[in-house]
Amino acid sequence: MTSTDNELRVIPIGGLGEIGKNMMAIEYGDSILVIDCGIMFPDRNMLGIDLVLPDTGYLIERRDAVKGIVITHGHEDHIGALPYVLPDLNVPVYGTALSMGLASVKMKDSRGATDANFNTIEPGNEFSVGPFDVTLFRVNHSIPDAAGVIVRTPVGTIVHTGDFKIDHTSVDGRTTDFHRLAEVGDEGVLLLLADSTYAETPGYTPSEVVVGKALNRLIGEAKGRVIVASFASLISRVQQVVNAAILHDRRIGVVGRSMVDNVKLASGMGYLEIPEGMLLQPNELGNNPPEKTVIMTTGAQGEPTSALVRMANSDHPQVKIENGDTVIISSNPIPGNEAEISRTIDNLFMLGADVLYSRIEEVHVRGHASQEELKLMLRLTRPEFFVPIHGDYRHLVHHARLAASVGVDEENVFVMMDGDVLELSEQDAGLVGNIGVQNTYVDGLRIGDVDNVVLRDRARLSKDGVIVVIVPVDQESGGIVGELDLVSRGFIDSEEGDELLARAAKVVARAFERSPGRADTGYIHSKVRESLGQFIYQETRRRPMILPMAVEL
Amino acid sequence: MTSTDNELRVIPIGGLGEIGKNMMAIEYGDSILVIDCGIMFPDRNMLGIDLVLPDTGYLIERRDAVKGIVITHGHEDHIGALPYVLPDLNVPVYGTALSMGLASVKMKDSRGATDANFNTIEPGNEFSVGPFDVTLFRVNHSIPDAAGVIVRTPVGTIVHTGDFKIDHTSVDGRTTDFHRLAEVGDEGVLLLLADSTYAETPGYTPSEVVVGKALNRLIGEAKGRVIVASFASLISRVQQVVNAAILHDRRIGVVGRSMVDNVKLASGMGYLEIPEGMLLQPNELGNNPPEKTVIMTTGAQGEPTSALVRMANSDHPQVKIENGDTVIISSNPIPGNEAEISRTIDNLFMLGADVLYSRIEEVHVRGHASQEELKLMLRLTRPEFFVPIHGDYRHLVHHARLAASVGVDEENVFVMMDGDVLELSEQDAGLVGNIGVQNTYVDGLRIGDVDNVVLRDRARLSKDGVIVVIVPVDQESGGIVGELDLVSRGFIDSEEGDELLARAAKVVARAFERSPGRADTGYIHSKVRESLGQFIYQETRRRPMILPMAVEL
Repeated sequence: MTSTDNELRVIPIGGLGEIGKNMMAIEYGDSILVIDCGIMFPDRNMLGIDLVLPDTGYLIERRDAVKGIVITHGHEDHIGALPYVLPDLNVPVYGTALSMGLASVKMKDSRGATDANFNTIEPGNEFSVGPFDVTLFRVNHSIPDAAGVIVRTPVGTIVHTGDFKIDHTSVDGRTTDFHRLAEVGDEGVLLLLADSTYAETPGYTPSEVVVGKALNRLIGEAKGRVIVASFASLISRVQQVVNAAILHDRRIGVVGRSMVDNVKLASGMGYLEIPEGMLLQPNELGNNPPEKTVIMTTGAQGEPTSALVRMANSDHPQVKIENGDTVIISSNPIPGNEAEISRTIDNLFMLGADVLYSRIEEVHVRGHASQEELKLMLRLTRPEFFVPIHGDYRHLVHHARLAASVGVDEENVFVMMDGDVLELSEQDAGLVGNIGVQNTYVDGLRIGDVDNVVLRDRARLSKDGVIVVIVPVDQESGGIVGELDLVSRGFIDSEEGDELLARAAKVVARAFERSPGRADTGYIHSKVRESLGQFIYQETRRRPMILPMAVEL
Repeated sequence: MTSTDNELRVIPIGGLGEIGKNMMAIEYGDSILVIDCGIMFPDRNMLGIDLVLPDTGYLIERRDAVKGIVITHGHEDHIGALPYVLPDLNVPVYGTALSMGLASVKMKDSRGATDANFNTIEPGNEFSVGPFDVTLFRVNHSIPDAAGVIVRTPVGTIVHTGDFKIDHTSVDGRTTDFHRLAEVGDEGVLLLLADSTYAETPGYTPSEVVVGKALNRLIGEAKGRVIVASFASLISRVQQVVNAAILHDRRIGVVGRSMVDNVKLASGMGYLEIPEGMLLQPNELGNNPPEKTVIMTTGAQGEPTSALVRMANSDHPQVKIENGDTVIISSNPIPGNEAEISRTIDNLFMLGADVLYSRIEEVHVRGHASQEELKLMLRLTRPEFFVPIHGDYRHLVHHARLAASVGVDEENVFVMMDGDVLELSEQDAGLVGNIGVQNTYVDGLRIGDVDNVVLRDRARLSKDGVIVVIVPVDQESGGIVGELDLVSRGFIDSEEGDELLARAAKVVARAFERSPGRADTGYIHSKVRESLGQFIYQETRRRPMILPMAVEL
């Protein structure tokens, strides 16, 4: 796959199952435009992994071709990889004011250089990136200043929605820019790439106004202190909590590092309005009367080190949950987090709090478009070709069906996987290959030194533990001399383990009795693995990792 | 807590967070009646654990007092511990015909004696267990022949609902026995113990009829083969699939061990009616025309070794998913299983199947009562005292509020935890202590030899792996002689690991240069842990388990 001058290519690069979520490449001739540069959080099979980075190998090989990175919005899964990627790809980054503000904070928080070339772009203003003319357009999403991207290429126009929904009564008064979309639809759209996250959900996503009303009522009804947990980047939610607190004559405390940071940044940039004197300082948190207090905090997903989870575990230095507290969890569970959130709610109830959450009160709306909004996007842009992005495979399939239902030719809809290459001319499009992408894992300080072998070993260790076997070998004769030493961890409790391992040592020793006098290390190791593994499995039906260590005496 | 003759005690013993789900004890004088004997499946922090058993220590200490076990229904979390408990507590077991049938199969499947004393009881027929007069009453639940328990004690009558809902149009035509409940309510109920699983859900649980209609329509609309996955014990669902298959002139194949076993048992006992010649034999599965085939199978929760998951992974010996297949997942995700189910659905879509599930079609109804049904139960029985059982803590709190809303005195409602002891007289009740219960883990063949230390070690191993350090010690001088040998697993890939571990060996060796010549093993081990741990954390921010092994040369 080498680019020729008159072909356009679109490649979703990474998203850990959510196709193209973290990074997309648009390639024309020898120029590449990158959209988004985010991280994913590991799924539960990626034991010990902190973050997953998109695979930038393709881009780094074509370093000179990469002309810039356009950011759609300031969520981690769209900006979080910048500190890892920019040192390798030192290109300009473009985005709205809040996106650039959050990206700058990200760079500062990470080690390494902060001389990134960040360009704040006002939606509607066209700018050039190599051969591409780019315009951002406003969309509603669960963070202010979110945008989609219109990319005018020599072959035709591409519209990339970013994460979006349509909220006619949003908190900041701004709405997804229908006019721009209608205009570009009239001019002609070659390809639409659109958010599929809620493509299986009928109807419309409710407005943020619904949450505001519920928060108002619940804070009004609460007799004691109110604690609201949500996402730190969901500034409109924070604003609604502030508004409700004003209405009910309560002051507001902000707790949790990322919430404190984001409230500060958003206030400074004018995305959040908190009246003078309304914020509680940390030292006032304990003294302000409960019925005059709202605490805004993190941990709505049950994250183990978050403020709310620490409160639920009676382990927060400043906030101690008490009888009479009302806790509002203003989010929906992200799939995979259900168990942690349930445990957090249970723990809060046990401490005497009343807990309100999206299952029983309308305290959250999702940040993505439902089916009717997706149809509107398809109708406004009237694309020749369509690729559903941002979603699990089933969401893409549902979105593809929606597109067909509103008149996009079924043969012009491509359900892609990360790494797939879609090649487009003015009349035609087709999948032409896959660039081969794989996850890059960040574990602690280091990037890419945990591979699938390491993960497989961790999985095995997690299930049945490890047995280390020291095998004393005579340097002269090469035979086994003296006693084997077996030590286990994570396999069995020490009491029963001592007895079992003593028997195991005899079994292994006996296996060597029948073997030739002189043995090399490989032979010794495999003999230990075989005889010990078999004995242990027979006795316990467990398969601990066996680590034989021949030691020459 | 020693029982005196005129006191009644109720103790929820186990349920892994779902209070009293697996086992309850009712104690009067020196007699104990046990209700249910089930297992729980481990949560994701219980690494490598297969099953969790209720803590029967209290019962075994009072072995002679235990007069019998009453089973409410045949689900694993109510009968699954019988093979583990009966060898220690050889008492009669009572339950409805299907419950006893399933319990017998459980005993046969396990090793050990099968001479259990199982007694089939017709609902409505009173029988005696020590000083207790016991009557089962029918309830609707997601398995046929489910029952609640009325226990008449010298102090008063206890009603235990078991898991229940109310289905006026159930598949087998049987409904929760209102008449019996009204009667006992008229006589006077001292204590109601009632299922709280869906106490946070308003309204009524829909009837199984709703699912039948959806299955009928979807099987009718399908062009090719239809595969329905559900719970093997949900016999009414199997019956509805059979009925829909009849209506659309399809034959039915049964795939998956537990589904095959339960279909056989339920057909034999008359709980399931499959017309002669309708069942596909295993060798016919591949030949029957797709449009004439329905396959009923397991794996609706994404269980890794289940038939559906193997089909989704193209790894099932008999069923290969093809373009044109329709897969119906006839269940709701049990909290914690969402990610596995999503992955299964995605994989099925990728293989070309159309997949229908509860989020997009009404292909499942839950097995537990919602708020209106719970209120009806409270109103029918009119208990003096009330204890919500079977549910996470938040469900118990919601159920307690419901009870107060229908007139149960708030002071007479007790939200209990496993191990709590409720003591009742004719006029009074109160919590008097906790017997102290803890989970017993089954891992492979062995019971109770995995304790919290082992689980902590597995957690650490799963996160950052292990480094084994062989330290050669001179037998005479007690000093370190020769090179240290470091081996890691699950910590870092081999390429980068070799370099890092070589540097680490030098760091550890250097630590010993500054130490006294003669050192005991404890000193050597702690020195290795300290110097190596510090170096590794500094380089990687990881904390692998460090296993120093001093070897005398």
